[in-house]
Amino acid sequence: MTQPTDADDRPADANRSTESAIDAGSDSERDPLFSRIPRRDFVKAGAATGAMASLAGCTGMLSGDDESTSLTDVKTDVDPGEHDDYYAFLSGGHTGEIRVYGLPSMRQLMRIPVFQPESARGYGYDDRTSEMLEDAGGYSWGDAHHPRVSQTDNDYDGRWAFVNDKANGRMARINLKYFETDAIVDIPNQQGTHGACCLLPDTKYVFGVGEFRVPMPNDGRDLTDPDSYTSTIAAINPETMNVEWEVLVDGNMDNGDGGKEGRWFFATGYNSEHAVTESEMSSTDTDWLKAFDVPAIEEAVEAGEYEEIGGVPVVDGTRNSSLNEGDRPVARYIDVSKSPHGVSVTPDGKYAIASGKLDPTATVVDIETLAEADDPNESIVGRPRLGMGPLHTAYDGRGHAYTTLFIDSQVVKWDIEAAVEAGEESTDPVIEKIDVHYNPGHLIAAESYTADPQGDWLISLNKLSKDRFLPVGPMHPENDQLIYIGDDEEGMSLVKDTPSYAEPHDASIVSADKIDPAKVYDPADYDEEFVGHEDIDISREDGRAHVKMYSTRNEFGFEEVTVTEGDEVTMTVTNIEQTADILHSLAIPEHDINIKLAPQETREVTFTADEPGVYWMYCAFFCSALHLEMRSRLIVEPAE
Amino acid sequence: MTQPTDADDRPADANRSTESAIDAGSDSERDPLFSRIPRRDFVKAGAATGAMASLAGCTGMLSGDDESTSLTDVKTDVDPGEHDDYYAFLSGGHTGEIRVYGLPSMRQLMRIPVFQPESARGYGYDDRTSEMLEDAGGYSWGDAHHPRVSQTDNDYDGRWAFVNDKANGRMARINLKYFETDAIVDIPNQQGTHGACCLLPDTKYVFGVGEFRVPMPNDGRDLTDPDSYTSTIAAINPETMNVEWEVLVDGNMDNGDGGKEGRWFFATGYNSEHAVTESEMSSTDTDWLKAFDVPAIEEAVEAGEYEEIGGVPVVDGTRNSSLNEGDRPVARYIDVSKSPHGVSVTPDGKYAIASGKLDPTATVVDIETLAEADDPNESIVGRPRLGMGPLHTAYDGRGHAYTTLFIDSQVVKWDIEAAVEAGEESTDPVIEKIDVHYNPGHLIAAESYTADPQGDWLISLNKLSKDRFLPVGPMHPENDQLIYIGDDEEGMSLVKDTPSYAEPHDASIVSADKIDPAKVYDPADYDEEFVGHEDIDISREDGRAHVKMYSTRNEFGFEEVTVTEGDEVTMTVTNIEQTADILHSLAIPEHDINIKLAPQETREVTFTADEPGVYWMYCAFFCSALHLEMRSRLIVEPAE
Repeated sequence: MTQPTDADDRPADANRSTESAIDAGSDSERDPLFSRIPRRDFVKAGAATGAMASLAGCTGMLSGDDESTSLTDVKTDVDPGEHDDYYAFLSGGHTGEIRVYGLPSMRQLMRIPVFQPESARGYGYDDRTSEMLEDAGGYSWGDAHHPRVSQTDNDYDGRWAFVNDKANGRMARINLKYFETDAIVDIPNQQGTHGACCLLPDTKYVFGVGEFRVPMPNDGRDLTDPDSYTSTIAAINPETMNVEWEVLVDGNMDNGDGGKEGRWFFATGYNSEHAVTESEMSSTDTDWLKAFDVPAIEEAVEAGEYEEIGGVPVVDGTRNSSLNEGDRPVARYIDVSKSPHGVSVTPDGKYAIASGKLDPTATVVDIETLAEADDPNESIVGRPRLGMGPLHTAYDGRGHAYTTLFIDSQVVKWDIEAAVEAGEESTDPVIEKIDVHYNPGHLIAAESYTADPQGDWLISLNKLSKDRFLPVGPMHPENDQLIYIGDDEEGMSLVKDTPSYAEPHDASIVSADKIDPAKVYDPADYDEEFVGHEDIDISREDGRAHVKMYSTRNEFGFEEVTVTEGDEVTMTVTNIEQTADILHSLAIPEHDINIKLAPQETREVTFTADEPGVYWMYCAFFCSALHLEMRSRLIVEPAE
Repeated sequence: MTQPTDADDRPADANRSTESAIDAGSDSERDPLFSRIPRRDFVKAGAATGAMASLAGCTGMLSGDDESTSLTDVKTDVDPGEHDDYYAFLSGGHTGEIRVYGLPSMRQLMRIPVFQPESARGYGYDDRTSEMLEDAGGYSWGDAHHPRVSQTDNDYDGRWAFVNDKANGRMARINLKYFETDAIVDIPNQQGTHGACCLLPDTKYVFGVGEFRVPMPNDGRDLTDPDSYTSTIAAINPETMNVEWEVLVDGNMDNGDGGKEGRWFFATGYNSEHAVTESEMSSTDTDWLKAFDVPAIEEAVEAGEYEEIGGVPVVDGTRNSSLNEGDRPVARYIDVSKSPHGVSVTPDGKYAIASGKLDPTATVVDIETLAEADDPNESIVGRPRLGMGPLHTAYDGRGHAYTTLFIDSQVVKWDIEAAVEAGEESTDPVIEKIDVHYNPGHLIAAESYTADPQGDWLISLNKLSKDRFLPVGPMHPENDQLIYIGDDEEGMSLVKDTPSYAEPHDASIVSADKIDPAKVYDPADYDEEFVGHEDIDISREDGRAHVKMYSTRNEFGFEEVTVTEGDEVTMTVTNIEQTADILHSLAIPEHDINIKLAPQETREVTFTADEPGVYWMYCAFFCSALHLEMRSRLIVEPAE
């Protein structure tokens, strides 16, 4: 293999001191963070370096270097024809999609377009999906951050995945029977929906966590009065995808996580300053972790203690709200070090752990005591000092937490109960650190969001790849690194570098046996009319034509379809195949149309035939040796 | 690892007889091909089975099974942080994109949107790229089939890749300095451009091979007169992307390849019947491989022997054309068995090899004798019998050809000179066969399209994956399988299964050292004005606003931008970073805008500010610990 040669561009050495690696790029002189973050010392745990060095070559399959390692009994690749053990759902960031990977192979099994039209699936091309995208605002992209999979009894139930759109304040639902997006809700009163997650144990709500503070409603009022800007969390019914209620808060929010017991929901936030410039937003030393008491909010809604804004009940959860007085506040504001970023609830439901981002600590909150505490800060039971730029935390189910250190480019493994025992700031709970490449955002461990994490695999979703892959121009891939965490004695082991297209933010990892996708469509699941061999038909009336036809190897129901220039044409097409994996499409040249037809699937497409001529409609999925001949002529006769 | 359990759905056994595996699905009773293809016997070479069995577990890295294999000295995976040896450019079919893989890891390093807007790159969102897509027809997708990389002296020169659009008759160019699409030409007189390839040795032309026969011009005339339909090949200047000339032909064409000597260009075709239905299109026993004599065509153009149609000179190359009489025909029609599909020229430039598709043979044409032969069929020097559904052929540089067998789901390795020695139909040239999974279309070997293939790796681009991966719903991934071909004694070895999103058709594999992408933009390469610290400006006049600003960690040039409802706003934004991999974007919520800004890159975007309110413009690339705070307010004041 070719070794990277561009040494000048290479980041600091793996064993560099933390002090020397404070920036996201490599020019620390100019990074504005450099002068802003407290530069405290901390003990770098020694375990990591040794384990890592011995495993640096561990993916060297059949390469002749067969020294025994801690991974001897762990298969870290998947033989041809064998299946992966896990599904991983990774967000696609500003591509607007979700990607499905297999673990441990890290192979991308499928893409699921969510917020953007996508022609290979015909998503946004057929009438049903284009109407869905139109009804959700008509945008051609979204910023998909946090894919969360539905749970029942704190375990994955294989029904849905949800993901937010930070760019347009939306939440989408992916149907895991068909691995396709089946609903998008445009959340009222939210300009940027950053966090997405479920209220457990049974996914009663999906929460959309609003980030950007704007006037409410944002219709031209209060433009230059930032104090009147606001943001909300939104509780969405996962079945109907209706927004049931929202809660107004102080400060910007970003990430969230639900407790395991159905009561508490947590959201981190920054900008308690209510500022509008970057320097002012990070001027105070603390911001808030917000804890929402869901039953208290529901009671307020029930009691009519809300204002209806944008068509939904909005409960006032700001600090000075009357609903936050008394012994049953709807929202509790917990002080944490400046600009906390990630929050996640431990598998046992005991703690919510928020990361410091601009502070080297994490904050451990005891959930059980939260309801009774006079001051919610009393529920803070630990504050381990982890390293520079702690962002997100995942769990192995054995009492360990794993936190990404954005600035240090590391993942730190630490002991949760040791952090509680230590109480105030301490590096004692730190067990081990491993270098990642480079600047990790989220990380995710197998089933970390459930009550029973699997404890074997962890992915570090790194924002920069720099020199880790062959160069591909000024836009680099990111680097999703697979780390084995199953051996506490040997420590964490870096196993794979996986380049990824911009920009996975978060992921959920689900055991393969908990999802049971269909291989063929069930026509009962959608409204379009199934068009069998006997049902083909062409009707024309008043400038509208309706063509009903089937597709099968190697033909469409009609060998030609004649319409008149100016006709509005609807084509209803069914793939009548029963065999899994035999897909067809209906592509119409020079008409910008391609609709996907999986076995037993029907889709409709409507367009105007506005240019006279002959157009060879064809199947874009290579379906048999006579695939090229699978065509039908669309003949558009001149109007007169 | 979980073994696939859905046995009913699994295709026939690897050692099944050819007779039992004739369909693309698994229900052979109903496949129309079953009764149409001649069912001849052929000898299945024995070498493959043994080699394959011993290597079935060869990717079991660190799995404990360390039996020595033929791959002992070959690294088939790439350690974390090490680089791949090759770039592979795979087409994305009806996604409209190109994907860049690393070999041998088979990791997807990058996506390059070509015919479709793509929001993570802001491709089709900024003014320059959206105008390019609009000028090329305004379609939102394309059907990208054949990525071919430019060559000089029959070797890759790292300048460009080209790819066709089958859906709309177009050709695109990708700039390999920046790994981005920089030109698309809408080819006149072509409805579906199927083939794409270069005239070698120096990429004098890029050829677009027209598939669909339509009236010319296709404006409503001759709608129901298929005999007057026609198709063309188009010669495109790679520098200007202008169509220099076209040649009119009989029959549909699909794939093409250029000779190594700058004279001949070859295209396969079907439908010599000039039919419009699938059954009629495959009714005769032979179709044509067309050989175009490029200097003869250039002379005809020079002499004015053309008709100008759609703005380009069109030379008549149909069989009965006067230009095909005499001893310097512009196009020679060579008879090959029905519906030949792929054609490729051997690395030494001696032979053009066309595959039978509906016939179990390939046809070997001696290029050197083609000019002098009275009847071009005299130049057919071999016709090896390879198996069922031969589609495409690649080369290892050691005298072997590798042909995909679509129906047999195999790759067959055969000896080219042995096929010439054998002359008429024979299975003797067959050396070995290996099962692939399933139904391969194209295959590609490392640098197979050059004069000097590397002879180590081969990818079989299989159209169906069926049960090879975890199920992901009715739309399955395809399966791009990596095969090691570097050991003629041990034979071909299947190394990796790689799932891929619909639908790679073809690929080019280039040694890593032959491409040298830039890591930072050179402002001299584009027209937009670089906006440095001193150049920021907001101007407003007559309902138009122009905002010039920079982006850098962690700020935009302006913390707020105020415009009036109804203003047409142009934003010119420069990423002033010098550090590779530090990207920013300008995302504008609820305005459907996201433009990517790599280091030193400037992009412009123009939109109408039609809704009063506050909009938080933000950076969608996670660029530093203060990424969330990198924002600017767009304030749209009510008109009055």
